Amino acid sequence: MSDRHTDKTLTSSGYYVSQEAPIHTDDPVPTPSVPAPDILRCASMEIVVTDLAASRAFYVDVLGLTVTEEDESTVYLRSIEEFIHHNLVLRQGPVAAVAAFSYRVRTPEDLDRAVAFYTELGCRVERRPEGWVRGVGDSVRVTDPLGFPYEFFHDVEHVERLAWRYDLYTPGALVRLDHFNQVTPDVPRATRFMQDLGFRVTEDIQDDAGTVYAAWMRRKPTVHDTAMTGGDGPRMHHVAFSTHEKHNILAICDKLGALRRSDAIERGPGRHGVSNAFYLYLRDPDGHRVEIYTQDYYTGDPDNPVITWDVHDNQRRDWWGNPVVPSWYTEASLVLDLDGDPQPVVARTDDSEMQVTIGADGFSYTRRDEDEEMPDWKKGEYKLGHQL
Amino acid sequence: MSDRHTDKTLTSSGYYVSQEAPIHTDDPVPTPSVPAPDILRCASMEIVVTDLAASRAFYVDVLGLTVTEEDESTVYLRSIEEFIHHNLVLRQGPVAAVAAFSYRVRTPEDLDRAVAFYTELGCRVERRPEGWVRGVGDSVRVTDPLGFPYEFFHDVEHVERLAWRYDLYTPGALVRLDHFNQVTPDVPRATRFMQDLGFRVTEDIQDDAGTVYAAWMRRKPTVHDTAMTGGDGPRMHHVAFSTHEKHNILAICDKLGALRRSDAIERGPGRHGVSNAFYLYLRDPDGHRVEIYTQDYYTGDPDNPVITWDVHDNQRRDWWGNPVVPSWYTEASLVLDLDGDPQPVVARTDDSEMQVTIGADGFSYTRRDEDEEMPDWKKGEYKLGHQL
Amino acid sequence: MSDRHTDKTLTSSGYYVSQEAPIHTDDPVPTPSVPAPDILRCASMEIVVTDLAASRAFYVDVLGLTVTEEDESTVYLRSIEEFIHHNLVLRQGPVAAVAAFSYRVRTPEDLDRAVAFYTELGCRVERRPEGWVRGVGDSVRVTDPLGFPYEFFHDVEHVERLAWRYDLYTPGALVRLDHFNQVTPDVPRATRFMQDLGFRVTEDIQDDAGTVYAAWMRRKPTVHDTAMTGGDGPRMHHVAFSTHEKHNILAICDKLGALRRSDAIERGPGRHGVSNAFYLYLRDPDGHRVEIYTQDYYTGDPDNPVITWDVHDNQRRDWWGNPVVPSWYTEASLVLDLDGDPQPVVARTDDSEMQVTIGADGFSYTRRDEDEEMPDWKKGEYKLGHQL
Amino acid sequence: MSDRHTDKTLTSSGYYVSQEAPIHTDDPVPTPSVPAPDILRCASMEIVVTDLAASRAFYVDVLGLTVTEEDESTVYLRSIEEFIHHNLVLRQGPVAAVAAFSYRVRTPEDLDRAVAFYTELGCRVERRPEGWVRGVGDSVRVTDPLGFPYEFFHDVEHVERLAWRYDLYTPGALVRLDHFNQVTPDVPRATRFMQDLGFRVTEDIQDDAGTVYAAWMRRKPTVHDTAMTGGDGPRMHHVAFSTHEKHNILAICDKLGALRRSDAIERGPGRHGVSNAFYLYLRDPDGHRVEIYTQDYYTGDPDNPVITWDVHDNQRRDWWGNPVVPSWYTEASLVLDLDGDPQPVVARTDDSEMQVTIGADGFSYTRRDEDEEMPDWKKGEYKLGHQL
Repeated sequence: MSDRHTDKTLTSSGYYVSQEAPIHTDDPVPTPSVPAPDILRCASMEIVVTDLAASRAFYVDVLGLTVTEEDESTVYLRSIEEFIHHNLVLRQGPVAAVAAFSYRVRTPEDLDRAVAFYTELGCRVERRPEGWVRGVGDSVRVTDPLGFPYEFFHDVEHVERLAWRYDLYTPGALVRLDHFNQVTPDVPRATRFMQDLGFRVTEDIQDDAGTVYAAWMRRKPTVHDTAMTGGDGPRMHHVAFSTHEKHNILAICDKLGALRRSDAIERGPGRHGVSNAFYLYLRDPDGHRVEIYTQDYYTGDPDNPVITWDVHDNQRRDWWGNPVVPSWYTEASLVLDLDGDPQPVVARTDDSEMQVTIGADGFSYTRRDEDEEMPDWKKGEYKLGHQL
Repeated sequence: MSDRHTDKTLTSSGYYVSQEAPIHTDDPVPTPSVPAPDILRCASMEIVVTDLAASRAFYVDVLGLTVTEEDESTVYLRSIEEFIHHNLVLRQGPVAAVAAFSYRVRTPEDLDRAVAFYTELGCRVERRPEGWVRGVGDSVRVTDPLGFPYEFFHDVEHVERLAWRYDLYTPGALVRLDHFNQVTPDVPRATRFMQDLGFRVTEDIQDDAGTVYAAWMRRKPTVHDTAMTGGDGPRMHHVAFSTHEKHNILAICDKLGALRRSDAIERGPGRHGVSNAFYLYLRDPDGHRVEIYTQDYYTGDPDNPVITWDVHDNQRRDWWGNPVVPSWYTEASLVLDLDGDPQPVVARTDDSEMQVTIGADGFSYTRRDEDEEMPDWKKGEYKLGHQL
Repeated sequence: MSDRHTDKTLTSSGYYVSQEAPIHTDDPVPTPSVPAPDILRCASMEIVVTDLAASRAFYVDVLGLTVTEEDESTVYLRSIEEFIHHNLVLRQGPVAAVAAFSYRVRTPEDLDRAVAFYTELGCRVERRPEGWVRGVGDSVRVTDPLGFPYEFFHDVEHVERLAWRYDLYTPGALVRLDHFNQVTPDVPRATRFMQDLGFRVTEDIQDDAGTVYAAWMRRKPTVHDTAMTGGDGPRMHHVAFSTHEKHNILAICDKLGALRRSDAIERGPGRHGVSNAFYLYLRDPDGHRVEIYTQDYYTGDPDNPVITWDVHDNQRRDWWGNPVVPSWYTEASLVLDLDGDPQPVVARTDDSEMQVTIGADGFSYTRRDEDEEMPDWKKGEYKLGHQL
Repeated sequence: MSDRHTDKTLTSSGYYVSQEAPIHTDDPVPTPSVPAPDILRCASMEIVVTDLAASRAFYVDVLGLTVTEEDESTVYLRSIEEFIHHNLVLRQGPVAAVAAFSYRVRTPEDLDRAVAFYTELGCRVERRPEGWVRGVGDSVRVTDPLGFPYEFFHDVEHVERLAWRYDLYTPGALVRLDHFNQVTPDVPRATRFMQDLGFRVTEDIQDDAGTVYAAWMRRKPTVHDTAMTGGDGPRMHHVAFSTHEKHNILAICDKLGALRRSDAIERGPGRHGVSNAFYLYLRDPDGHRVEIYTQDYYTGDPDNPVITWDVHDNQRRDWWGNPVVPSWYTEASLVLDLDGDPQPVVARTDDSEMQVTIGADGFSYTRRDEDEEMPDWKKGEYKLGHQL
């Protein structure tokens, strides 16, 4: 590795740790002069679906989310440990897309801060004291400088936390909304902006030249509330729910097989290198990607080590070295502006993670600095790459 | 239930929720005029053991904690996901006791705040820029108004987080220090004081008359960093480490059986009502109680509902209704003052949870307001109580 | 241990192994001159319940067994991997009891062998070509010399094995009927008789004087198809269903808690010493005992070592040393004769396992030959015994 | 499906069941006039490895098998629940290959039957009263009509079953040898021969034209003791060990990642359609394939339904629809004759499962008779096939 890594310490597991997120941008969004709102956590996502009945069947009958409330055009869903009104809103609409990444803030006053923060940046900002969706009161929605639609709220209807209602659990019970994942062309620029918004980087993927392929960042003390994945954007890569244990995730796969819906499984199950969590990626009836996720680690100390993975490390995305399917790199959901129109997608100009790892000129290794060739049966992403 | 519960909402799971911790004290510790230190999390405990080799064997060979550093009189241990120097310090000494409940604070300046906070309360406060134990720098130790010894620190040596080192995992791997549990005669007084220190109550156990038997409180967004258990105190009830999954806890039991050390198992495994976590209680060679714990819930929102359990609910301490063994109620570890001398133990004068639930005049129910008698095979704590 | 153990080898786990089941009887049932039927496996149990709706709710709604067929007086249930009509028959009746322990035999001709075998012994034998219950054809029912009612059948209706129907699984899915357990006063006599019927002993519990407290025996290559437990009998101790994993058993406990039916849990969950399986004992609405069981070992080789546990080994019944509740030793279900009348119960005259281990004169050890006293917090069965 | 399926019943899970294994051969091995030996179970495999130290490290240090005995050229290994001397023999040699598939028979006399059975078939048969390997006495080795080397034995050294030695368990503990899998060009011929040897078919994969791609068959009542996989042979496809639970298999993957040996993972983990078991395929340092396997179902009844999977069912090999990597279809280990020379490999002439499912002319479906195309993200084996 080059000198760019001199401020990083190589660990016995093959990744680097450092104190400051080693991400620099030459094209920053200006840092507002006013304080950012105090964000508690990612709280819900509103997605537009083209066939509400099909989506409801997927999220309720297959995945077991709880319906808090619904009408002809909208379904409000929550996970089993949640005490606020919803973690996911399905809204019938003409084009599958994301209407809002919604964050809960600590106090009502943080909404004023959100308005000031984004207004100073010249963003479109709209506040509705009665809320944009049911169950949520005074809310602010913005289109941020990266083109993503956010919602901020504090006031919310409480519902019963069903954590003790084991009579309602399914074998694959989803217990929490864990995080979002966003696709954006310029990861350093996006990361820097999110740092201004108060997020802390926990992990990232880079190469020796300093190209950043993805970065994970958090408010609550888990590995992330959201991540920025390099690619054509703004788009939504996935929304993730947690289970308690790994077998719960396997049970979701088993059930999809039993329902002859195994083609909803896009990638996994597997163990992430990044985050150390166990994962599964599904695609809902509109192709919106949903991750099922469990068991990352505590990141709440201010000096929590930032982990940097080498993009060529074949265990960064899957600790077991199983290949990432190409669709996982290339496909994502559109996001909407505040009028409900899809945001234009801007192409990434930095190197593509897929191309540098599995493309014709890409490479990945299991053991750093090893000359011996991978065995035939496990060329992993290489092999796929050569076939593209 | 009496009108005391009118501000509480009975849930479908049999406990109550409310917004404000429904705990009142007529004998508060004065609230300091200065701000409390910003505590991040419970970080480690220093315990005095009478046979260091035996204790090391228990914590390292049986439980699999990692030795960060050791010498003839002291062993520094950490859990597998920890990145700071230690979570547990074993120190050879003449009397088994707890030398310090150690909390990490957000900034170096919070040590100044800790000094001011406890000094105003008239507590003994001692600051050592070089630290009290290895791996930790500038630290403050105090004896608090309840008689407990605390340590506060920010500066700490980083060590490698071994979360990805699955080659080092045992079947019962301990991944995090989760919480402390303290025994104190007057739970409302103690709780109020901890609230002044910045803790938030998440759950408690009460009766209709408003007697509080125990309360759980947190800084990090889990159910607790510490709990106050009503009893003769100040004493240490237990220190708890987390595993990833429930089978990890069962594996610890299996291993203790294989080692013919099953008599180290005091209570459990089981599912808590309070916290909803899966648990096991062990006793180390000196009788210090260690809990192994997994899967409680997120509590980080400021309006996280406070849960109140009825002391007569037989599922509050064990969701499966298995009886609590009497030793769990009555035995606990001494704590030391800053000179290393055991603190005197003051008797609890409020009702005893054991007596009101399993004693001759106590009672417990599985179903509230049900007249039918418990079946013979499951009188649970009743039965034991009648035998005491 | 005495010389009685000279033909046994003490293992590193604290039990003995030998080649021949070390069980001798001075009062054998005569060995018939004709061959025994070739029994495949324990296949189902027919139990009389006093409130069919309550029992159906327990077995179907709580435990998740599948209803193959039902009418006003009878419910036929099967586990999720079963392909024959039923594993459990609930029949409404005036007195809770067991009507039949039902074994499947290899061929139709084995029914002729069953008739001849029991007829020679002077037992009451009744054959019904149309079967005694739905789904089963030509069947023989007998009252055996020990007073137990058995059914033998080969012809049976096939139903769909639902093993792949993960959409139907609950978190605590029961996948197989595993075994029966019978209470009988004279374990050596009963064991010898079962050996004549073709069963092989896999494990037993004895003391130094050669008193046999219980024995496990099998046809299929698991630890048992049935066990003989010393006590007043003939009675039915329990019927056991298997889950795939340990967490499935924990999920049943969690669900019972959520339903406020935790008082259905009589003992466990825990790890057996005998069989090495993970277990839980429930009591159904009539008090019939049901075990949930998982992960014993293969016993199919003819020289599979027979394991003998010392009755004073505190880990024999629970590997973790948790005490056996007294009701588990003393309570059991009546069994019926072929007219449907309860069989008289004959008292055991040999020593009682409960008395020799937890009674005033009993004792149990965690470590053999160890002088040091058990710690206060874990006197286990001792403690309970002193309280009886 | 064609009329060939008229004697089969389509289940709700998408496979067929029938009573007789629907496999017919026009080129049978003659059925011997003498009875077959009574085989208990697959008991061990002897493999030749080219770097004994590397292989020992893989099987002992990584997979955790127990060394019963070893010398400079040979290592004898067993699983944790085994009571016979070994389940796997590693022998240093010049060419990686399989020296023997070893079955245990019920009695010493079954060795005489084995000699007579194979002698009548004109096979090379060699009996060594002192055994071919340590720990095993009187043994017969043969090269069977399909070219595979078998060993039969009854007399064997007993060793301690370590099932209760939880202090020795690793997170991925292998508890039993479960089965072999053999590659042979003509599956119907091989299956018929194994039926003559006393095996019963439990599952197979066919197409509408009646081509059989693979068949599973058993002696002990699990899904298989061995399987015949269509391909160039005789070769050894894999040897499989069981774990207790699914998380044990995931732990092996995690550990391989930690050791930076993830390239030993060839396929999985996943859920099989065939057998319903959870699986993982590894490749040892010589490329010998090892399956880790858990939780198939009981098959011991004589009328156990035979399951037939359609070769185009994309869930037959992986219930979750994840693609089978090409190497899994094409690579396998050589087998040796009794002189230790590799057997010549004969090409399969029937259709190739890989070609008919993922080749240019192949196809696979998730839902039978569905016209809608698979989504882009989950063309599974299709996609890979088009790239070959």
